[in-house]
Amino acid sequence: MRGCTIHSRAVTAPVCIVGATGALGFGLAVRLGSAGVPIVIGSRDAGRAEEAAAKASRAVSAGDFSGAQNADAVREAEVVILSVPFRNQSENLTNLREALEPGQLLVDATVPLAAAVSGKATRTLGVWQGSAAQQALEMAPDGVRVVSAFHTVSAALLADLSHKLDEDVLICGDDIQDKAQLAELIDRIDGLRAVDCGPLEMARIVEQMTALIISINVRNKVRAGIKITGL
Amino acid sequence: MRGCTIHSRAVTAPVCIVGATGALGFGLAVRLGSAGVPIVIGSRDAGRAEEAAAKASRAVSAGDFSGAQNADAVREAEVVILSVPFRNQSENLTNLREALEPGQLLVDATVPLAAAVSGKATRTLGVWQGSAAQQALEMAPDGVRVVSAFHTVSAALLADLSHKLDEDVLICGDDIQDKAQLAELIDRIDGLRAVDCGPLEMARIVEQMTALIISINVRNKVRAGIKITGL
Amino acid sequence: MRGCTIHSRAVTAPVCIVGATGALGFGLAVRLGSAGVPIVIGSRDAGRAEEAAAKASRAVSAGDFSGAQNADAVREAEVVILSVPFRNQSENLTNLREALEPGQLLVDATVPLAAAVSGKATRTLGVWQGSAAQQALEMAPDGVRVVSAFHTVSAALLADLSHKLDEDVLICGDDIQDKAQLAELIDRIDGLRAVDCGPLEMARIVEQMTALIISINVRNKVRAGIKITGL
Amino acid sequence: MRGCTIHSRAVTAPVCIVGATGALGFGLAVRLGSAGVPIVIGSRDAGRAEEAAAKASRAVSAGDFSGAQNADAVREAEVVILSVPFRNQSENLTNLREALEPGQLLVDATVPLAAAVSGKATRTLGVWQGSAAQQALEMAPDGVRVVSAFHTVSAALLADLSHKLDEDVLICGDDIQDKAQLAELIDRIDGLRAVDCGPLEMARIVEQMTALIISINVRNKVRAGIKITGL
Repeated sequence: MRGCTIHSRAVTAPVCIVGATGALGFGLAVRLGSAGVPIVIGSRDAGRAEEAAAKASRAVSAGDFSGAQNADAVREAEVVILSVPFRNQSENLTNLREALEPGQLLVDATVPLAAAVSGKATRTLGVWQGSAAQQALEMAPDGVRVVSAFHTVSAALLADLSHKLDEDVLICGDDIQDKAQLAELIDRIDGLRAVDCGPLEMARIVEQMTALIISINVRNKVRAGIKITGL
Repeated sequence: MRGCTIHSRAVTAPVCIVGATGALGFGLAVRLGSAGVPIVIGSRDAGRAEEAAAKASRAVSAGDFSGAQNADAVREAEVVILSVPFRNQSENLTNLREALEPGQLLVDATVPLAAAVSGKATRTLGVWQGSAAQQALEMAPDGVRVVSAFHTVSAALLADLSHKLDEDVLICGDDIQDKAQLAELIDRIDGLRAVDCGPLEMARIVEQMTALIISINVRNKVRAGIKITGL
Repeated sequence: MRGCTIHSRAVTAPVCIVGATGALGFGLAVRLGSAGVPIVIGSRDAGRAEEAAAKASRAVSAGDFSGAQNADAVREAEVVILSVPFRNQSENLTNLREALEPGQLLVDATVPLAAAVSGKATRTLGVWQGSAAQQALEMAPDGVRVVSAFHTVSAALLADLSHKLDEDVLICGDDIQDKAQLAELIDRIDGLRAVDCGPLEMARIVEQMTALIISINVRNKVRAGIKITGL
Repeated sequence: MRGCTIHSRAVTAPVCIVGATGALGFGLAVRLGSAGVPIVIGSRDAGRAEEAAAKASRAVSAGDFSGAQNADAVREAEVVILSVPFRNQSENLTNLREALEPGQLLVDATVPLAAAVSGKATRTLGVWQGSAAQQALEMAPDGVRVVSAFHTVSAALLADLSHKLDEDVLICGDDIQDKAQLAELIDRIDGLRAVDCGPLEMARIVEQMTALIISINVRNKVRAGIKITGL
């Protein structure tokens, strides 16, 4: 998909972003939207979802954004990105259990930052299942495919469309096809490259890297990202 | 120090590498040695240390390499790099307690891979103290300064002097001076850049990244490294 | 103190319980209160604290209970028991930083259950500092002494004064005097025995045992506790 | 089975103990052996297994003990107890993969003590799979049933047949039948009571309790065990 500059909206299935009212979700919405991907923003509150969609439309006038309650938003998409605070991930997954259907691809972007319990943003919580992504897998209905991504990408730089991205998105998942499907989507965003990091259990490490990047940001007064060398 | 190609050996204090008989330690030895840093290789066995020094000399004819038993090797250096398997780290630190002296800088490169207990190299063990680096801090004599580094750099690429490096070394430590001292040493190696990742406790995350890089290597048949974007 | 049935209120310093509006805190309040210990119940909301104090007074008519905002409640006591959900522990400690004073003994009873992020009550979260108790130590003002206790005692059985207790309270702490001071308090409650489990870092394990006991309760339809044999 | 003092050897299937050359395994061997259970001791080295069997026979003259190489020993038993140091667990499971057969019950007694990497015996290592027991489940052949037990029982007190036991064995497992089968075996040992602690994932917590008991032993100069109250 690299280098492809024309995207036919007709052939692009919509992507649902649950939590696009947050910083990372909104950044992904405008970047994917400006790459020609129809975006359905999901929120517990339909009004907030519509607001976020309107805000995204203002940022990307050619974009196709709509907002709906989570359950409705999820039903319209083949790919669902879950981008909520760790504190709310479990509750969101419980609620989505009715809406998610076998065959859908759930992309978990949750980060178990200690901030979930008012700890430091440079620290994390240990997740019983190994990682937030594995919690998503455990809680998702049977047949829903789960991959993990977007933990090292700056929400602020995503949302700033004038910023030229040049970094990697680390993907973990147990099925190579699932990862390929997500990689194709990521490659639509100029300057992002998808890197296969292995099975879903490796999300345990990638999820930690958000806290590391926050620490690097604080020390060096930057908005850091990750690039894998040698590929 | 960047771009500086002539290093006066006279003004460069020797660096001791404990565990340079292993892959990472040896790679660091030849790279630092070829940058004009006198290297003292430490091993439990003086003979093995001397062998490794001879091997390094063959790789870098202009280098200044010597080998000695750990305790003797450590005494000659201001900076001591500990690059041993996690399984042996604690034992090594116990033995070095007599040799290390206040003021020395101990650079811990230990990775708590599950391989220490015959598990997979893409998995890690949780370290009670938080990280192997914090175990080093706990066990080092008072006054010995501890920083953490070198977890994401490929041993094989370090040892292959024909390979042009272009990646980052992630440094964690509680004292900014200590990290600056190590950064200066790292900057002597062409193609490596030191990145301050924050306090020593962040080593918990950086140490995990070795397992992640091994997983990326396996999936993509490469020798990956890390580069922080946005700096 | 065992077997002593008459407690002179005059010589007993008041104990403050932050979070006595919750089940464990309330259970401790009525047990200590009925053992003659004056109890000051702290809450963010003075009204709720007073309500809890009134409720405790109804349960133990001879008890000496009062309620106050956390900061005021803490100031009146030598021993402060922190018994709040893990989700609120950090925030509570931040708020108490002004109120706690050097020399006070802070008894942390926090359990890092996964329930803090809507996970199962039979699962826990890994705490960056090792344990909730070590988070308390990190956040408490210098000079405040920290011990850990009460993780295996059933809140319901504590609150049910008709239930004859017969179990142990596992105490962790770095100072043997601090643990002795708390043990003396625990020994005032008939049927509880304090057991020294070693340094504060052992709280990492004891805190997990709440989840284990919940699992035992579920499987066996009981209200389990722990007793150490061989003492 | 409680109170049953006569066991017909004819109807009792032999139990294999892999690692009965170690303290816990040997203690279990003599206790089960004196309860009339035929014991096959497995070791990597047939000679060492036979030695341990001879030693057990000297301790329990009426016992039925034999020794064999691990693979041979395992084949003779319905129940296989794995009681090896954490450092060797993975390697043992790899070797047993050929010998273990669907339908066998594997009882994992492994404790991930930090001693595996020369750390303190009062500290543990975090196991990637959650617990040593889950590592056993992951590595065992399909159809082999896995339960976890014996982590809080003193090896020394087991081996000392003059000591009257009075404590609990905490069992974790995903199948209630599997746990019942093990409980029946445990109940043959006077003074031990099996307690169902829930699914295998709870072994994460029970395995930590060995370190806690070691800490209690050190502090209180005892040989502690655990008893669950309220059952």
